[in-house]
Amino acid sequence: MKLQLALDLLDVGAVRRLLDEVIDLVDIVEIGTPLILQEGMTIVTEIKERHPTVTLLADLKIMDAGEIEAKIGFDAGADIVTVLGVAHDSTIQGALNQAHKRGKQVMVDLIAVNDVQTRTRDLDLLGVDSLCVHTAFDVQKQGQSPLRELQLVEIVRNRAKIAVAGGIKPDTLPEILVYRPDVVIVGGFVTSCAEKRKAVQEVRQVLSFAR
Amino acid sequence: MKLQLALDLLDVGAVRRLLDEVIDLVDIVEIGTPLILQEGMTIVTEIKERHPTVTLLADLKIMDAGEIEAKIGFDAGADIVTVLGVAHDSTIQGALNQAHKRGKQVMVDLIAVNDVQTRTRDLDLLGVDSLCVHTAFDVQKQGQSPLRELQLVEIVRNRAKIAVAGGIKPDTLPEILVYRPDVVIVGGFVTSCAEKRKAVQEVRQVLSFAR
Repeated sequence: MKLQLALDLLDVGAVRRLLDEVIDLVDIVEIGTPLILQEGMTIVTEIKERHPTVTLLADLKIMDAGEIEAKIGFDAGADIVTVLGVAHDSTIQGALNQAHKRGKQVMVDLIAVNDVQTRTRDLDLLGVDSLCVHTAFDVQKQGQSPLRELQLVEIVRNRAKIAVAGGIKPDTLPEILVYRPDVVIVGGFVTSCAEKRKAVQEVRQVLSFAR
Repeated sequence: MKLQLALDLLDVGAVRRLLDEVIDLVDIVEIGTPLILQEGMTIVTEIKERHPTVTLLADLKIMDAGEIEAKIGFDAGADIVTVLGVAHDSTIQGALNQAHKRGKQVMVDLIAVNDVQTRTRDLDLLGVDSLCVHTAFDVQKQGQSPLRELQLVEIVRNRAKIAVAGGIKPDTLPEILVYRPDVVIVGGFVTSCAEKRKAVQEVRQVLSFAR
């Protein structure tokens, strides 16, 4: 089970300090959409240069022009780019073509997909590398969690790996680990913590029980 | 009826030259998603500084964190940001809150929305400024056009303005103008043309018949 750290910060200096502090404890570094919109691909390239061995995911949330936008992410140094599950199949296919011809990966974000089981079956057949069960930031306040969707997706997925995101903390992690996702994504819990290395260690410890 | 020019280019020098050539002929300049992903908000700020009187739309295609991402766009100088119609209402509401407290606007992109009439009714009630009927770049090759959806949306919209996009050219414009959209978005037709000013003038001329 891998740990993905989502950088939901907008201050590039804070991002640098955070990564220097915790990089040895995380498997995948996710550059969040707001940071990408603000900084563009320079932030992807910078992080890849500073931390060349970490797997880097650019949360592009591609909705159209799949091949073109995936290329922008991979050219900048991303190992994985995200495409929205609500996008047309041809957009997802375009991103996959771009990824697979250069040994890179596509994660499809299931955010706001109505019927996650049907969509998971389709996307699995399309050959996506991983699927992210994701409770939107904007609906987390309404008390929603990714748990129910994780259950539904886990039943029908076949080849694709499963990641899970949406307000995950050490407290809520054990019930998620029951479904054995391949990747657990943690963001706000770490970035809002004063002692960031301790926060990541705490998550790591809970994950270690599931191994 | 306004003319919006979508910058689907990735070369910043080419963008500068194009705008210097045609800026007096367009009402709204749209900074396309690929260019934003590549350059971040510096390109928005640069264009706003070079052309302070033009209305500037940043095609952020917001899917989550509506308030945060809209703020990034407006802080950089955008007058309008886009949010995806497939996003949760709370995301669209977040972007609207950010826009309306500073006299800015939100355009909702109906790309990949299944039932455009029901969604249009919802979004109109939510108070979005405009709706964009949009045939994805990745499905234009399959011969799809925005015409049918424009018809459907035009019937049910009430307060929101309507924009239309997706491979529009002078040839296909007359059938679109029948439905009197508020904004016509042209991109590839202009940017792929050798004589760009002439291309915009050609679009302008067709638009003038509809006034």
